[in-house]
Amino acid sequence: MRLQHATWQEVEAYLERARGIILPIGSTEQHGPNGPMGTDALCPETIAWTLGERHGVLVGPTQAIGVAQHHLAFPGSLTLRPSTLVAVLRDTIESLAHHGFTHVFFLNGHGGNIATVNAAFAEVLGERSLRREVAGELQLQLFNWFAGRRGRELAESLYGDAEGSHATASEVSLAWHAAPATLRDVAMSPRRAPAGSAQCDAHTFRRRFPDGRMGSDPSLASAEHGARFLEAGVEDAWEAYRAFVEGA
Amino acid sequence: MRLQHATWQEVEAYLERARGIILPIGSTEQHGPNGPMGTDALCPETIAWTLGERHGVLVGPTQAIGVAQHHLAFPGSLTLRPSTLVAVLRDTIESLAHHGFTHVFFLNGHGGNIATVNAAFAEVLGERSLRREVAGELQLQLFNWFAGRRGRELAESLYGDAEGSHATASEVSLAWHAAPATLRDVAMSPRRAPAGSAQCDAHTFRRRFPDGRMGSDPSLASAEHGARFLEAGVEDAWEAYRAFVEGA
Amino acid sequence: MRLQHATWQEVEAYLERARGIILPIGSTEQHGPNGPMGTDALCPETIAWTLGERHGVLVGPTQAIGVAQHHLAFPGSLTLRPSTLVAVLRDTIESLAHHGFTHVFFLNGHGGNIATVNAAFAEVLGERSLRREVAGELQLQLFNWFAGRRGRELAESLYGDAEGSHATASEVSLAWHAAPATLRDVAMSPRRAPAGSAQCDAHTFRRRFPDGRMGSDPSLASAEHGARFLEAGVEDAWEAYRAFVEGA
Amino acid sequence: MRLQHATWQEVEAYLERARGIILPIGSTEQHGPNGPMGTDALCPETIAWTLGERHGVLVGPTQAIGVAQHHLAFPGSLTLRPSTLVAVLRDTIESLAHHGFTHVFFLNGHGGNIATVNAAFAEVLGERSLRREVAGELQLQLFNWFAGRRGRELAESLYGDAEGSHATASEVSLAWHAAPATLRDVAMSPRRAPAGSAQCDAHTFRRRFPDGRMGSDPSLASAEHGARFLEAGVEDAWEAYRAFVEGA
Amino acid sequence: MRLQHATWQEVEAYLERARGIILPIGSTEQHGPNGPMGTDALCPETIAWTLGERHGVLVGPTQAIGVAQHHLAFPGSLTLRPSTLVAVLRDTIESLAHHGFTHVFFLNGHGGNIATVNAAFAEVLGERSLRREVAGELQLQLFNWFAGRRGRELAESLYGDAEGSHATASEVSLAWHAAPATLRDVAMSPRRAPAGSAQCDAHTFRRRFPDGRMGSDPSLASAEHGARFLEAGVEDAWEAYRAFVEGA
Amino acid sequence: MRLQHATWQEVEAYLERARGIILPIGSTEQHGPNGPMGTDALCPETIAWTLGERHGVLVGPTQAIGVAQHHLAFPGSLTLRPSTLVAVLRDTIESLAHHGFTHVFFLNGHGGNIATVNAAFAEVLGERSLRREVAGELQLQLFNWFAGRRGRELAESLYGDAEGSHATASEVSLAWHAAPATLRDVAMSPRRAPAGSAQCDAHTFRRRFPDGRMGSDPSLASAEHGARFLEAGVEDAWEAYRAFVEGA
Repeated sequence: MRLQHATWQEVEAYLERARGIILPIGSTEQHGPNGPMGTDALCPETIAWTLGERHGVLVGPTQAIGVAQHHLAFPGSLTLRPSTLVAVLRDTIESLAHHGFTHVFFLNGHGGNIATVNAAFAEVLGERSLRREVAGELQLQLFNWFAGRRGRELAESLYGDAEGSHATASEVSLAWHAAPATLRDVAMSPRRAPAGSAQCDAHTFRRRFPDGRMGSDPSLASAEHGARFLEAGVEDAWEAYRAFVEGA
Repeated sequence: MRLQHATWQEVEAYLERARGIILPIGSTEQHGPNGPMGTDALCPETIAWTLGERHGVLVGPTQAIGVAQHHLAFPGSLTLRPSTLVAVLRDTIESLAHHGFTHVFFLNGHGGNIATVNAAFAEVLGERSLRREVAGELQLQLFNWFAGRRGRELAESLYGDAEGSHATASEVSLAWHAAPATLRDVAMSPRRAPAGSAQCDAHTFRRRFPDGRMGSDPSLASAEHGARFLEAGVEDAWEAYRAFVEGA
Repeated sequence: MRLQHATWQEVEAYLERARGIILPIGSTEQHGPNGPMGTDALCPETIAWTLGERHGVLVGPTQAIGVAQHHLAFPGSLTLRPSTLVAVLRDTIESLAHHGFTHVFFLNGHGGNIATVNAAFAEVLGERSLRREVAGELQLQLFNWFAGRRGRELAESLYGDAEGSHATASEVSLAWHAAPATLRDVAMSPRRAPAGSAQCDAHTFRRRFPDGRMGSDPSLASAEHGARFLEAGVEDAWEAYRAFVEGA
Repeated sequence: MRLQHATWQEVEAYLERARGIILPIGSTEQHGPNGPMGTDALCPETIAWTLGERHGVLVGPTQAIGVAQHHLAFPGSLTLRPSTLVAVLRDTIESLAHHGFTHVFFLNGHGGNIATVNAAFAEVLGERSLRREVAGELQLQLFNWFAGRRGRELAESLYGDAEGSHATASEVSLAWHAAPATLRDVAMSPRRAPAGSAQCDAHTFRRRFPDGRMGSDPSLASAEHGARFLEAGVEDAWEAYRAFVEGA
Repeated sequence: MRLQHATWQEVEAYLERARGIILPIGSTEQHGPNGPMGTDALCPETIAWTLGERHGVLVGPTQAIGVAQHHLAFPGSLTLRPSTLVAVLRDTIESLAHHGFTHVFFLNGHGGNIATVNAAFAEVLGERSLRREVAGELQLQLFNWFAGRRGRELAESLYGDAEGSHATASEVSLAWHAAPATLRDVAMSPRRAPAGSAQCDAHTFRRRFPDGRMGSDPSLASAEHGARFLEAGVEDAWEAYRAFVEGA
Repeated sequence: MRLQHATWQEVEAYLERARGIILPIGSTEQHGPNGPMGTDALCPETIAWTLGERHGVLVGPTQAIGVAQHHLAFPGSLTLRPSTLVAVLRDTIESLAHHGFTHVFFLNGHGGNIATVNAAFAEVLGERSLRREVAGELQLQLFNWFAGRRGRELAESLYGDAEGSHATASEVSLAWHAAPATLRDVAMSPRRAPAGSAQCDAHTFRRRFPDGRMGSDPSLASAEHGARFLEAGVEDAWEAYRAFVEGA
């Protein structure tokens, strides 16, 4: 059930039986020679939509732009300042809490968002703690689809070390499955990209990683793999979501 | 051509022949008894995607949440504070300008965004004016699909006064065409909703407009109408976009 | 009755019989060869003061600086960033609401302020909507004196197309009437300035509009006309104000 | 010469012979039983205008609202948050610096503004220091008219200890002289108000100072005194201004 | 009693008998040829710790970085923007108020902080005034150790005019006493530094004050003097603190 | 070498041979029945000071307050909003970069700071990436002393599972060693505290962790252990610091 496809009466009815919602969050940034710019948003979005249909969980709109300043030396990459994303997440969470949602689960596709999403959680909860408001009802969780156990195991079995850490074969596979029009047949040179740290500015990043990949060989990707990553991702996310809403 | 579906090399190639981009912007808010919450994002998105494919214009990711504080008394409506949306648009425009885009065209589906988008334009341009930076290359434009001539004429011919101003038959039709799963058959009572001003807080809005509609009878909507609004919208937007990029 | 001229006890007494207030808002920016920099503030201020005296309405201090980044290439023009003006209006409105004012009516003289004032309204109301606070009592309205029916008709009858859209004969006339010391006898060359869009940075604006005028011939202005625009403006504004406070 | 009354060509000509400007800044807040709410703005404004005419110095628009949170328990008092006023002053100063003004002199009428104006100076200068920009040309100064030597001596001679520290006889006299319509004949009870600290919230302030005065007996005020305070104030301010622009 | 050395149960017990706390605040900035960068933090810190031990007052963590933009042309100087320090103080005060502290006493070692600390007080109190919250319990005070009567008299007797206003012999003495490792034997040239205003950017400051001192001869400093300044400072601060907590 | 103890000439000399600096960052928050509130600042501070002396690395002032909103239900805990801490770190890093420091190494003692410190890094680097500034010289790193290999191994060998995750025996030991006055002999009940997640508001945190500990038995702590943790921590940090400054 997608929030954007529901009427407000349907949301009202949903809130009578559930208080949780899943929000996909990604990035619009280069993903090497054969990965689409939207990879980090397409992946959690397709997992969230599939999970939402299978298990009747409401899925909110996808936050398609994230914190990707280090990718700005590649044309088309977009970034929000962390302080901007904190404000976006604060407003979104406050809107949901206003309606009575108590469990907001962010399904994330971009490592660069992790710090800022967690900072946003502390910003929102801190406002409530300072006001002595009993916010116990509001629970916030971040789940990175790419770090789920099943997905990790599948990537290990398919690609081993060639999975890498950015523009990986696993995420490109899943993006291709989610949006077949994005499939590209591109030879990689070198086959595996250099590895290193992404904690730097855009200029340095491009010097370190000339075609945008980090340690990966995404020429191993395939839409068929993507279908398997979707299954793994849905199971990983569903397990995490259930533990979340059934938790505290 | 969708930015999220392109590789960075494709964006690089695009920038050698063009400097303009279209960014759909909408809202996630109640649209009465039969309109989906995502109506205001679905409409400009489908117009932009169709236009992009037909005319080879790059289309960026959709901003799905807008300024909709007056809808918060209806479950599921989300809002950004205007100051938050200004920050989002600033970062997005600065990212694009960084890559050499000179014409950023926002295709908007939500009246409540108009003031804030224009304020964001002044915020971005003002930074450049104060820095004595020759920003003449950066042009910003807002186009509201629902105010296009062809779309207005079509709505007038199909619905006359029953079009109204929120949860209108035209936008519901277009949303249904864009996302057929959102079609709902709901009787309206009264047939036409009361009219009035939306410049108020959420509590007052709901008192004025009990089921969320403003002056409209969206039971007149149909997916077939939606296909016609799509054509009208694409022509209206293309005309505006060409005038924009060929202008100053 | 001007707030700045009243004692607090007089404001206290006013609040026992009325809950509305008028706030003039303008700009300090170039107005072509014969218009004073303060035109956009002088015009709504004189209308507000006259209206206030005639009808016993409280008039607050004038916000003399607005959003005028596009005028910065002309010496003396001042601008606030939109985000700054939002903060100013938020604090001002919150101060007034604190005292029990329920109807805050901004009488505006500058087109460049419109977006930001409306964004500020959404910022203020949105805070209340998110807090589930019943803010129905707080009503906010923007009225642009230059768009009033009577004023428009008078300008049309006096100047026709030569009225233009910035440094117009009507606003220069009214400023001269309000502050006779500002009257200047300057020949215009060309008689009518070029027309075009002001949505651009300061550098581009000056290139488009070399002496600052947009489509106007303010050599047609006169203080006598100004007296007539004052009458028209007071009637237009009074009509709008009454509809506002007697409305919702 | 008032900026609001000048054309941009006149400002351009002024900048060829001078680089300084005076900006009056005040507050809109209760001033006891017989002082107008606008006292703190009217006083520096009338001094600045007189000084400007006599000595050919440009005078910008008055900032009529200041930091006056402690007066909010008296109807009609307005406040800006300090962070808002910092933003206003930053934008104003940056606009002026953009035009080549190098000496910006704030003529202040409200003690509650002092800290924030000085913080704003550090904010503006700090941006330049961090950017390694040679900002030596930009000089900022705050002058409190009520602390000028001549004015202090006059108040001492006229009122002695009954001058007090808020709603003083000197400022009420000057406001009455500047705006004769504000003259009120009100008996004070007690003759001299209690003294104390204003560093507190609005509730506490009103408890400490029931009619708004702090240590003063403004029933001693007169418009004739005001004329003398104007002369003293103009001399004090002119001396300070000359030292400022002829200094570093 | 230092907050950082206490357990939460000890703070809980403290709050049963007292509601005041002392917060040292300083700066990290050049202090001329023989003064340590941390002088402005070391001085109030050692006074606060000594006072706290003698009189059983709780002392919070030291804010070691202040507003010191004018010192940035000397290596190692750090600054916060005033708006940043306002946010830090706001969060700190709100945290303390949350626990029931009613009297927060800032013991300051840096003149450049004064404006911003007072602006922060108005920011915090203003939020409460606008919310109509009875904040009377929350009292905020700034005390500058270097302006205490006893300390001033001691400096006058020891150094006369050679005390100066930055990198003074008194503060260097106290810093040396607090942290003996910072003692440096450096000849001054000239003996007394030039005097002047520090209200300028970093570039100008260094031009005016080539070795960082302002009007001082800190070669007169000694750790023995420092011990005497500590005694004077503790007495001055204790007197001020007692008046504060026993006041309103 | 501590920045606060150095003169500016000494910093200038340091910058001729090195471009790196270590900044301790911690928190002021409850650490259970026997740990001091300042544990998270005392630990990295003592490691940094020791490392600095041994290896001639400059150590900046300690940021003693961090993001600790979840601890606010325990008296004395202080928090910064994440957005505030981002601003503090941004200003600090910009000040250091201004002087030519290229490697800023944050030695952190508080898990709750991790997200915000990383968000601050992206904020600072993003500004440079957007400005197309070659910021490659500016490298930022976060190192959590409590996650160093040697320290982890020591804790495992001393405490096994009783180490826990907050108010741990290892950090309490190190704090006691750093500040012997903080040693407390307190019996724990239960011996090991309950484990769980800290991602919640203050009210929920206290419900989950009644005496503030998370999964730990800090009655196992001792100052002697602390001396060993100091050695382990210095080696861990020094290894990380060298890799950092010798890296890119």
